[in-house]
Amino acid sequence: MSGSLREQFEVDLKSIDNTLVEMTRLVGSAMNRATTALLDADLAIAESVITADEQVDALHVDLEERALVLIARQAPVATDLRALIAALRMSADLERMGDLARHVAKVARLRYPESAIPPELHETITEMGRIGVELAVKTGEIIDGRDVDAARGLEDEDDAMDRLHRQLFSSLQHEGEPYPVETAIDVTLIGRYYERFADHAVSVAHRLVFLVTGEY
Amino acid sequence: MSGSLREQFEVDLKSIDNTLVEMTRLVGSAMNRATTALLDADLAIAESVITADEQVDALHVDLEERALVLIARQAPVATDLRALIAALRMSADLERMGDLARHVAKVARLRYPESAIPPELHETITEMGRIGVELAVKTGEIIDGRDVDAARGLEDEDDAMDRLHRQLFSSLQHEGEPYPVETAIDVTLIGRYYERFADHAVSVAHRLVFLVTGEY
Repeated sequence: MSGSLREQFEVDLKSIDNTLVEMTRLVGSAMNRATTALLDADLAIAESVITADEQVDALHVDLEERALVLIARQAPVATDLRALIAALRMSADLERMGDLARHVAKVARLRYPESAIPPELHETITEMGRIGVELAVKTGEIIDGRDVDAARGLEDEDDAMDRLHRQLFSSLQHEGEPYPVETAIDVTLIGRYYERFADHAVSVAHRLVFLVTGEY
Repeated sequence: MSGSLREQFEVDLKSIDNTLVEMTRLVGSAMNRATTALLDADLAIAESVITADEQVDALHVDLEERALVLIARQAPVATDLRALIAALRMSADLERMGDLARHVAKVARLRYPESAIPPELHETITEMGRIGVELAVKTGEIIDGRDVDAARGLEDEDDAMDRLHRQLFSSLQHEGEPYPVETAIDVTLIGRYYERFADHAVSVAHRLVFLVTGEY
């Protein structure tokens, strides 16, 4: 690749990174608002999360197209190619995180004007939402700064999410008057949405570590 | 690309297709056996499904590597590049289908020597398992034969899976003595695993349609 082509390629790669960072911002915001919609039974916020997911989907489609055009036109060397393939995968993870925030918002909408979550489980869900959003934000910083150390640090948050997820199941099976089956179904699905959201964030971070260091 | 390079490239592409077909066979068999393990509370079968998933993961990693090497070495034209990128995505979907079969087997193992599924729900789960396996088999045939019409026909099976998934939730909320919360949790998660398994199969088929026709 000639010098000016190389420069243009770097600009294009950076632009793809910027789109990924923007996607982390959008899915973090979506999960934040979906959690509010769920706990406060706020229909307007739930609707706005559901609608806004189209934006994430559009960014994903656009990023795919740009990455494919770059690969086809520039025939990039191994490292650049791996960066582009990694970007395609991160974009797919982020698109899925958007879907999961939308799923949470849809449960909120389905149960409106009730909250799908019993009051005594609000604290756990609040914490799961907080960690989910934090994972999205950190993932954005990690992509932006190619920050391998921060990426490795995400395991702690992911472990915390898994613990809360298990705690949610234990809480459902408490002593005394059992929860209605509808509540058990809602809480089970929602717990899974948060846990998968965290898994995908960690997956994005892992791909970045692999990209920078060549190691899993 | 020269004639002989072209021929070699076609051979390599076909070999990647063959791996994808092999993966559909493995995940179909895994879901079939996971369903048996779940309904018959068969620990040995559950363990074998859990162990066998490593094979699918290994094929996925190997396919990724081969596709990347092909892209890097051959700098394929747009159509070939799209075929390789599509193969990467199909492989990721199939790898996930393997995970979902493993998840079903893990619930079977967790509840052994009981079945996680109450007797009156066995019929629905049997049918969800049957459709899941059928989707995997058809997806293999579709990849092997580049069969766009068959791919479009998968929607019916996917709709049937969605109907059974909703029916499962209704059954959980039946009149009379409510199910234990543990059962509600297990059935909710398992229902989701089958539904996602079907979604990924349909996603593989959609990627093939896009690849062949250029249309979503």
